[in-house]
Amino acid sequence: MIRVRGAREHNLRNVDVDIPREALVVFSGVSGSGKSSLAFGTVFAEAQRRFLDSVAPYARRLFDQIGVPDVDTIDGLPPAVALRQQRGTPSVRSSVGSVTTISNLLRLLYSRAGHYPARQPRLHAEDFSPNTPQGACSRCHGLGTVYDVTEEFMVPDASLTIRERAVAAWPTAWQGQNLRDILVTLGHSIDTPWRELPKRTRQWILYTDDQPTVPVFAGFSSDEVLAARKRKLEPSYMGTFIGARKYVLKTFATTQSALMKKRVSQFLTGVRCPLCKGRRLKKAALSVTFAGKDIGSLSQLSFKALVEVLEQTARPSAGHGERASAENRIVAERIVADILVRVVTLQSLGLGYLTLERSTTTLSAGELQRLRLATQIRSNLFGVLYVLDEPTAGLHPADNQALFAALDDLKAAGNSVCVVEHDLEMMERADWLIDVGPDGGTGGGRILYSGPPEGLQHIAASRTAPYLFGHGAAPARRRREPTRWLELRDVTRNTLRRLTVRIPLGALTMVTGISGSGKSSLVSQALVDVVAEHLGHVAPDVQSDVPDEPSMRTPSRGRIAAGGDGVRRLVTVDQRPIGRTPRSNLATYTGLFDHVRHLFAGTRAARAKRYTAGRFSFNMKAGRCATCEGEGSVHVELIFLSTVYAPCPTCHGTRYNPATLLVTWNGKSIAEVLALTVAEAVQFFEHEANIMRTLLLLQAIGLDYLRLGQPATELSGGEAQRIKLASELQRSARRDTLYVLDEPTTGLHPYDADRLLTQLQRLVDQGNTVVVVEHDMRVVATSDWVIDMGPGAGDAGGQIVASGPPESLRLRADSRTAPYLMQWLD
Amino acid sequence: MIRVRGAREHNLRNVDVDIPREALVVFSGVSGSGKSSLAFGTVFAEAQRRFLDSVAPYARRLFDQIGVPDVDTIDGLPPAVALRQQRGTPSVRSSVGSVTTISNLLRLLYSRAGHYPARQPRLHAEDFSPNTPQGACSRCHGLGTVYDVTEEFMVPDASLTIRERAVAAWPTAWQGQNLRDILVTLGHSIDTPWRELPKRTRQWILYTDDQPTVPVFAGFSSDEVLAARKRKLEPSYMGTFIGARKYVLKTFATTQSALMKKRVSQFLTGVRCPLCKGRRLKKAALSVTFAGKDIGSLSQLSFKALVEVLEQTARPSAGHGERASAENRIVAERIVADILVRVVTLQSLGLGYLTLERSTTTLSAGELQRLRLATQIRSNLFGVLYVLDEPTAGLHPADNQALFAALDDLKAAGNSVCVVEHDLEMMERADWLIDVGPDGGTGGGRILYSGPPEGLQHIAASRTAPYLFGHGAAPARRRREPTRWLELRDVTRNTLRRLTVRIPLGALTMVTGISGSGKSSLVSQALVDVVAEHLGHVAPDVQSDVPDEPSMRTPSRGRIAAGGDGVRRLVTVDQRPIGRTPRSNLATYTGLFDHVRHLFAGTRAARAKRYTAGRFSFNMKAGRCATCEGEGSVHVELIFLSTVYAPCPTCHGTRYNPATLLVTWNGKSIAEVLALTVAEAVQFFEHEANIMRTLLLLQAIGLDYLRLGQPATELSGGEAQRIKLASELQRSARRDTLYVLDEPTTGLHPYDADRLLTQLQRLVDQGNTVVVVEHDMRVVATSDWVIDMGPGAGDAGGQIVASGPPESLRLRADSRTAPYLMQWLD
Ligand SMILES: Nc1ncnc2c1ncn2[C@@H]1O[C@H](COP(=O)(O)OP(=O)(O)O)[C@@H](O)[C@H]1O
Ligand SMILES: Nc1ncnc2c1ncn2[C@@H]1O[C@H](COP(=O)(O)OP(=O)(O)O)[C@@H](O)[C@H]1O
Ligand SMILES: Nc1ncnc2c1ncn2[C@@H]1O[C@H](COP(=O)(O)OP(=O)(O)O)[C@@H](O)[C@H]1O
Ligand SMILES: Nc1ncnc2c1ncn2[C@@H]1O[C@H](COP(=O)(O)OP(=O)(O)O)[C@@H](O)[C@H]1O
Ligand SMILES: [Zn+2]
Ligand SMILES: [Zn+2]
Ligand SMILES: [Zn+2]
Ligand SMILES: [Zn+2]
Repeated sequence: MIRVRGAREHNLRNVDVDIPREALVVFSGVSGSGKSSLAFGTVFAEAQRRFLDSVAPYARRLFDQIGVPDVDTIDGLPPAVALRQQRGTPSVRSSVGSVTTISNLLRLLYSRAGHYPARQPRLHAEDFSPNTPQGACSRCHGLGTVYDVTEEFMVPDASLTIRERAVAAWPTAWQGQNLRDILVTLGHSIDTPWRELPKRTRQWILYTDDQPTVPVFAGFSSDEVLAARKRKLEPSYMGTFIGARKYVLKTFATTQSALMKKRVSQFLTGVRCPLCKGRRLKKAALSVTFAGKDIGSLSQLSFKALVEVLEQTARPSAGHGERASAENRIVAERIVADILVRVVTLQSLGLGYLTLERSTTTLSAGELQRLRLATQIRSNLFGVLYVLDEPTAGLHPADNQALFAALDDLKAAGNSVCVVEHDLEMMERADWLIDVGPDGGTGGGRILYSGPPEGLQHIAASRTAPYLFGHGAAPARRRREPTRWLELRDVTRNTLRRLTVRIPLGALTMVTGISGSGKSSLVSQALVDVVAEHLGHVAPDVQSDVPDEPSMRTPSRGRIAAGGDGVRRLVTVDQRPIGRTPRSNLATYTGLFDHVRHLFAGTRAARAKRYTAGRFSFNMKAGRCATCEGEGSVHVELIFLSTVYAPCPTCHGTRYNPATLLVTWNGKSIAEVLALTVAEAVQFFEHEANIMRTLLLLQAIGLDYLRLGQPATELSGGEAQRIKLASELQRSARRDTLYVLDEPTTGLHPYDADRLLTQLQRLVDQGNTVVVVEHDMRVVATSDWVIDMGPGAGDAGGQIVASGPPESLRLRADSRTAPYLMQWLD
Repeated sequence: MIRVRGAREHNLRNVDVDIPREALVVFSGVSGSGKSSLAFGTVFAEAQRRFLDSVAPYARRLFDQIGVPDVDTIDGLPPAVALRQQRGTPSVRSSVGSVTTISNLLRLLYSRAGHYPARQPRLHAEDFSPNTPQGACSRCHGLGTVYDVTEEFMVPDASLTIRERAVAAWPTAWQGQNLRDILVTLGHSIDTPWRELPKRTRQWILYTDDQPTVPVFAGFSSDEVLAARKRKLEPSYMGTFIGARKYVLKTFATTQSALMKKRVSQFLTGVRCPLCKGRRLKKAALSVTFAGKDIGSLSQLSFKALVEVLEQTARPSAGHGERASAENRIVAERIVADILVRVVTLQSLGLGYLTLERSTTTLSAGELQRLRLATQIRSNLFGVLYVLDEPTAGLHPADNQALFAALDDLKAAGNSVCVVEHDLEMMERADWLIDVGPDGGTGGGRILYSGPPEGLQHIAASRTAPYLFGHGAAPARRRREPTRWLELRDVTRNTLRRLTVRIPLGALTMVTGISGSGKSSLVSQALVDVVAEHLGHVAPDVQSDVPDEPSMRTPSRGRIAAGGDGVRRLVTVDQRPIGRTPRSNLATYTGLFDHVRHLFAGTRAARAKRYTAGRFSFNMKAGRCATCEGEGSVHVELIFLSTVYAPCPTCHGTRYNPATLLVTWNGKSIAEVLALTVAEAVQFFEHEANIMRTLLLLQAIGLDYLRLGQPATELSGGEAQRIKLASELQRSARRDTLYVLDEPTTGLHPYDADRLLTQLQRLVDQGNTVVVVEHDMRVVATSDWVIDMGPGAGDAGGQIVASGPPESLRLRADSRTAPYLMQWLD
């Protein structure tokens, strides 16, 4: 047993708990009850601290800064490994092949046992890596892609004139004006719509490499310039022209400003490298084959296809065998066997549709976690404590079984597994269940139960018990009968091919399907793109968080065949963070903080000192702490692990300078207000209608445990998503809005999920349309309409298997969702 | 069981071995047999790799470079922590207090429960740290010491004139000449012995801050200068004077050259900071007391004294209790209890004589390892594999018991303990013994036995069995009767106070005593200093490896009262590395490589290409690999852990460029020769007398398993010591040399220790004197004379308890050495 005594981290109420080792332990409880504070904040954090302290005593300084978990003692604590749902994009780029180490093995295979053209010397393993100078294609530097501009991106609206900024790729402000003036001097019309300019002129403006320097007469027309030059008037200045393409490429390559880089990157598009054909390697490396394929092509296969190719080579009759020496054959067999074990584990975790070269930045948090899990299983550690964070997130019930098997493998190898989880099946399968609660924040933090799952049924206070043992179906409702439809045709994206999709307007639709079946491609990508285009605004860029890589999205294709008039606004509520620094928080994001600052500025003390509302912003110099510049924290690089934030040594996390903190409203300083939880704030601000509107929505949506000042960096993806939803809900109701949500119940206890559902239903009742990607069948059962994707994953998916009210799936034998959904429909 | 299959690291012969968990496992075998390759190179390295890979997948890149252990599989392997004997100085400065974390606790104690002067606000813990800007004394910046010059150092020989370079601190070469010429212009005599110059002149030359610029007439006498100036002759140039003190301080503070810094540092001496009196903190921090003492003074107490002070405060009657609030009392009790547990562990490991502020750079490798061991025991990890490297090193048999208890504690807490060890008692107490061998290098690498210790007695091939079960005393010899004595008087150093010491000349003397009793102070410090001074050369500076800190040694005091003429040369053979980069190695250090390079230069191929011997040096541009510049390796920063060397990607570790490698001598390239072990080289060079002399000595001293090119960075302290001894032995024999060795048997199997002893006896037979600090009683029993230090450690030691032939200790009840020694004397 791991014996935890006196745990007080965050909201934990000085709890004692014993956690069995070499078992699967599930931590349950509503959001904010303290599950993570116990599993991650206390047990994992302390194990990590102790072990790092042992192997690297010099790392201790870091813990001095970050602080140690608030707990009296923990005995019997093994070293721990955390597999968390990644928050935000990982800082280091990597591919599926590198994370799983399979790419290393492949390189070894090609180096040692590949088929070399006659007279070509053997290559080292690194020669097969696009990330080494020896291996990388010299044209694309191993990226597989070369970046270039397209006219379509640089001139998004050809009906504009140059004066109206037709050339969007050009710089704005003075420099843009300058370029327009130069064109005038050069005799081009800047008041003709772009599309009406002669093709040669358009080409020259966009693509020329020439950089003529000419006299500029600011504000003159073409004719006036001609006259002025004739009369040898002194020009305003001499200006140098730069073509749009040249400007974009040069700026992208040389600018030091992340903002500039990001701005110009939107005009670039990646095209497959013409030299290596996207395979990223030098010719010498690509000339070596195994099983008849070069390593670049092999890396582009899905795992499923890769297994087939490799299994062929294992057969003695394989063509490769004939030419290979006996030694090569043995080496090849050994490496291939090694690769196959790994790939099979990945397949069993429902990831068979991935390719080795897929960038991890395009994976969902759940996919990435399962990828790491698969790697762990192969890593063969003994006696380690694994702590996981909702591993079922993003998994269809049909995929869950493989996950359970994977966790069992870890356990069987002598490890302990602790899981923070909301999935009821996972709870049932646990060896031990620790229920934390009963509510969030100060209403939680107690251990309600610790023991084998079945014992929980006798615990009256538990919010988990009713769902686990009762039938706890979501409140029954009459289904809405769809009357109007939004019909999309020819939808093409990733694995979707010219699909026709009908979505009921004014209804709640849930999209289901196993992992990789195409749910996100359909909902978060194609639907959003097509509707955005229909509404005439640019779709939010999925990869917009990565400033130094031009967007690689080829826009989805498809069109609205009917019902377009039923959608007048599009709102996507995703799980991306609401900010990346502690400067954003709940209060600032929802706008609630503006009201609070005005209250403070209105106090007698503030007026006496002439403090305006700005003084109470931690983003403004006047009021904030000078050391941390209002962040409240300073960041510490935990090399290898990640960046963590430690409290600011000057203001001790309050963010403000002492003078500002002297001002109070109803007895609390601005810092103390930010420290209130939503629930506490509801009491404190009860007479402030503006503030209360937001607070009550946050509460309704299950976020009452969050502190007003809780920094964006401390919020989970699900919390961020619900905050966005709340911000959306507080706007005065409009009709005909399409809301799109991707797995909003991730991270939610069934009890919280029900509260969220109530809000979604309210939106529909107000005349809007809601489309949700969802895995929780208890939740799907409450929808008006289900669109089930499948039948398989990857190329075996991308189809609509069934579409209709939940009950209508009953008869669909081909739907892998139907059997799970039916359990909630009786 | 940890199941190792197919281990082939270094010389391991594809071995399989099962290692029990939660047990004390000892790895035995002669030097080079493969113990470390198995325990550290395979088991620990693989555990570290797997765990780091799990917690920090991005660290994997590092392992790709370093390479992974050569082993088929290891199952059941827990995460591991290595406690190695530190090689060389640690890269980060730290104190005993920081390594043990006790300083942190003390700061907390003073911050929370200290006694503050009236009206002084409470301080934060960091305010009590000399390493923070808030805490550090402003005069000495928290060092406790300010550096200044002394006349004694700057003018070591006052009988010299200025022309004869009396002012040793001044620059040499042209700039020194310049300063002397300026003094002539200024009218000072540069041909008067320093001590006869007027005091005012001496003071001015050394201490003035003035920097007059005067005409210099190079080579003129004072009078000639006067005349020249009268006649307004053109001077050679204008010169600016700088006082010796100013020169030294300025150069020390500003030079970029490590060499210059080191040169001037020898004229500096540290004196206690006048402001904080060496307590390193600001006044505010020092005004806070606990148990009547400020934190600076408390940190200067030995652990023994610290326990006494703290235990007093625990008593309710303690003065402190009266004024403290109840809350303070509770806080104080809790922190004090925490500190006491730690300190007691340290005491039980024989480290009670250390102080918190002692710098870890002044500790021996063994002391540092035990310090870390004590910290581990408190760290309370479960299920970890600890791998230790000869923890008994530097321990007197009387101290061993505490070590065994500490290892038992680790085991009882659920951990596994693996120890590479030569100590026979440790082997007897092991739960499991793994004997590797039988010989070193290619003669070893097999598992001769794996099981409970008693089973080893049936293993005929084992070199360990005879020592463990037979009586394996070192070969009996007739003791030499001392006839002449070297007598030292008034020896004062660390805890030694005006000691009189008599060392027999022409004999083998061993100095014994528990840890901290003063053996090193006597032998490696005082004896060496006094004899060096007697011989007129400067004692090797103990801290000379640290260029950026002036020597803090106050030279030992003492004088030779008799026998000085019996010592005409002094050789200290210590365990400091023979070099800090892979550029130094066995072959270069012993000079053997020069002969090898000449052989290569003499080949027909070399002469055809006009390659000289220089071409075959990896330190010269012509022949070496350009990528690694002849190092053969590139270094990789394993943040937190240490720097490791990975093979050079271009030359794959051969160090040479391809053209150089084309030249062979007797079929081997220069790189292949460097890869030979000493034993292999003995075959290969059998007809080359010059080379053979060195090789045979290396073999005789038990180093036949080392490769000729083995880099200094891969040698243990003991190996370095024996290489130095071999280099010394190969010089043509001279008489009347005093050899001083500190624990030369560390890291040696008894079988190897016997070979070393044979060499030491040979030196004595040739008319020399050998003094050895030694803990192994089997070895001490073979000496001619024993000097036993004690009776206790620290202030309780520093005395000579007994002195005489080994047998004479029998009757000394006060000697803690006697009972252990007697076991080997029957
Ligand atoms: N970094 C933090 N600092 C302070 N409070 C926190 C932090 N993280 C979480 N909390 C608070 O601790 C309580 C428990 O949160 P958490 O352990 O994350 O709950 P759960 O995992 O059950 O959803 C909540 O009130 C939450 O706001
Ligand atoms: N950015 C992308 N680049 C390449 N392939 C992608 C990308 N996103 C999704 N896919 C592929 O499209 C298919 C459907 O994926 P997705 O729509 O994410 O499925 P789901 O949301 O149902 O898990 C999968 O084969 C997936 O690998
Ligand atoms: N880093 C290294 N590279 C190559 N060979 C090594 C290295 N370290 C040790 N060896 C060789 O491996 C053999 C076993 O050494 P080692 O395991 O250190 O022995 P032991 O610990 O028993 O003294 C010796 O021949 C030694 O020279
Ligand atoms: N560099 C040093 N600075 C301060 N104290 C020292 C130093 N070296 C040794 N001492 C102290 O002198 C005493 C004798 O130490 P030492 O001669 O190293 O003992 P031994 O060699 O017997 O272990 C101990 O109390 C030790 O702490
Ligand atoms: Zn390319
Ligand atoms: Zn601050
Ligand atoms: Zn000072
Ligand atoms: Zn090299």
